[in-house]
Amino acid sequence: MTVTHRVYNFAAGPAVMPVPVLEQIQRDLVVLPGVGMSILEISHRSKTFESILAQAEADIRSLANVPPNYHVLFLQGGASLQFSMVPMNLLTAGATADYIDSGSWAEKAIKEAKKAGAVNVAATTKGENYSRLPRQDELKLTPGAAYVHMTSNNTIEGTEYRELPDVADVPLVSDTSSDMFSRPIDIARHALIYSGAQKNMGPAGLTVVIIRDDLLPRSQKSLPTMLNYTVHAENRSLYNTPPAFAVYALGLVMKWLIGQGGLTGIAAVNDRKARKLYAEIDRTGFYRGTAHNECRSLMNVTFRLPSEELEQAFVKESTAAGLDGLKGHRSVGGIRASIYNAFPEAGVDALVLFMQEFERAHG
Amino acid sequence: MTVTHRVYNFAAGPAVMPVPVLEQIQRDLVVLPGVGMSILEISHRSKTFESILAQAEADIRSLANVPPNYHVLFLQGGASLQFSMVPMNLLTAGATADYIDSGSWAEKAIKEAKKAGAVNVAATTKGENYSRLPRQDELKLTPGAAYVHMTSNNTIEGTEYRELPDVADVPLVSDTSSDMFSRPIDIARHALIYSGAQKNMGPAGLTVVIIRDDLLPRSQKSLPTMLNYTVHAENRSLYNTPPAFAVYALGLVMKWLIGQGGLTGIAAVNDRKARKLYAEIDRTGFYRGTAHNECRSLMNVTFRLPSEELEQAFVKESTAAGLDGLKGHRSVGGIRASIYNAFPEAGVDALVLFMQEFERAHG
Repeated sequence: MTVTHRVYNFAAGPAVMPVPVLEQIQRDLVVLPGVGMSILEISHRSKTFESILAQAEADIRSLANVPPNYHVLFLQGGASLQFSMVPMNLLTAGATADYIDSGSWAEKAIKEAKKAGAVNVAATTKGENYSRLPRQDELKLTPGAAYVHMTSNNTIEGTEYRELPDVADVPLVSDTSSDMFSRPIDIARHALIYSGAQKNMGPAGLTVVIIRDDLLPRSQKSLPTMLNYTVHAENRSLYNTPPAFAVYALGLVMKWLIGQGGLTGIAAVNDRKARKLYAEIDRTGFYRGTAHNECRSLMNVTFRLPSEELEQAFVKESTAAGLDGLKGHRSVGGIRASIYNAFPEAGVDALVLFMQEFERAHG
Repeated sequence: MTVTHRVYNFAAGPAVMPVPVLEQIQRDLVVLPGVGMSILEISHRSKTFESILAQAEADIRSLANVPPNYHVLFLQGGASLQFSMVPMNLLTAGATADYIDSGSWAEKAIKEAKKAGAVNVAATTKGENYSRLPRQDELKLTPGAAYVHMTSNNTIEGTEYRELPDVADVPLVSDTSSDMFSRPIDIARHALIYSGAQKNMGPAGLTVVIIRDDLLPRSQKSLPTMLNYTVHAENRSLYNTPPAFAVYALGLVMKWLIGQGGLTGIAAVNDRKARKLYAEIDRTGFYRGTAHNECRSLMNVTFRLPSEELEQAFVKESTAAGLDGLKGHRSVGGIRASIYNAFPEAGVDALVLFMQEFERAHG
């Protein structure tokens, strides 16, 4: 089937998916080969689906070298539900959880955690509009904290960790929703990782959680069953009906990632795409990056123009030129180019050209 | 695209979907017409998706005559998460919730509700293996209860309400996961209805909740935000990223339902399909229905054979004959034919023929 009239989709998520994956989904949509029904109709208790789930997990494990003492869970509700599940499961009575406040999503995570227990904001850069990440020397960590929570990439503000913070032997929990599997990740330095799938891993409606086994005993039986990590771990994500289609689509994206040379391979492409864009932003001063250089995200490239009027014109003209979704998050304005794994390098080149033409016309 | 090699899918859910819907999803999968990207990639903040969501809601409202003082919510987590959300939102301090225990899923709902507050089991037929629904005269309702919870169709035991229980002016909450939109439904007699989509409404990964506005003030701000009905109502199901593809697919199923003559039209077909099957079950006594006649479900037709050996042979031979998913739920055994809206009448005819042949061979 010919792919026609596709635009370049710079949306922050749900976001662009690999075209070969879309084509395979399309080809097999009505009848999954050898199965006689659509993936949309298949019982989650069938051998076929169990094998799809197991293969997706195996590919995640292989891509990120997930150690055997971690469970990989396929859940629903997005990072927003994880904001509650993490403290409800891990913030035991009498303990304190440390949160690094590096952006708007971290702030939401903190708000939910405070409903569940004692929270210490270990550091915040809110006063600087989250234009940089808190530095190691700014972290006021609680000795014996239940865990430290961080956000590996801040989608709205365009910042991303290069190095994990040092939290000694306190369990590190990371919201990796917007840069998961965009580069190698050292699972063993984390205790729990969660990620809404809809940026780098698949379609919306699926959340991947990777949790170290020694955390599971913290989950109390009094929790709502669907919010209990131990229940999902013991039932291998089949306690209730999972979002079967999204698991299937994620599995195809994992296969595609393996074909791109895995996390090392895709990281090289992502690095090249982002460097092209930041080079253009820095070229004349007409565009202005919003994040401190050393914190710049390779996933969400945020920048401003000399005026809001020019930003509006930029969004309007770029959309007309087939460059879609460049408007910054409604809470901060400006421009945001989200260039996740599946975003084609040709689209970055097209944006750079557009930026040069726009500057010539309006600069 | 030709549909080849499709089997008859009697699975209890995820379940068969209308072929024209599958074909439309397939056709538009890579590039949604006029949009330039796949429905799997589209931003949930885009005008296109907002319009898809609004249309799905409008069609739900039109199909079931949803009164204006009800919100229609598109959530995640299935009925299993609703088992917790209902009491966490509606079971206010000091109040009691009445639960009608009519089957295995009702039992799970009760288990979750007890974690949230005081529960009165108004009646149970567990002692009779849930082979019938509790009668009106058996209900021990609490005066001034927070709500009465019922399960409109019991997927595992094959029973279904014909008439709603009389609960006077206490809010009626119904888990309609397995017969939603299989027949006309009087929304105004309910206070809250919830339904996992994966039987009659769409693919897995989406839950439809219809809630009367006067219940919303019961939701406390201390709830996890993602479990708060009021938050979802105020944000029109866009508080966070919804399962966009599943909403889109549900919308197409709603359009298909309208084309079938709406709920009255589909109810006539469902009635005819179920009558054919029960007539065959009752024909000679070789097959034996498990549910009392007056409680028989039109969605899940459960029956036994003279021995477990024959049941195993029945499952094996029917699968080989292209009749898939007839094995009863692992908790009760026997045979279960799930014949939801999209299950073709020709498949029922094929099963009836198979049953006759099987009886001739083994009877």
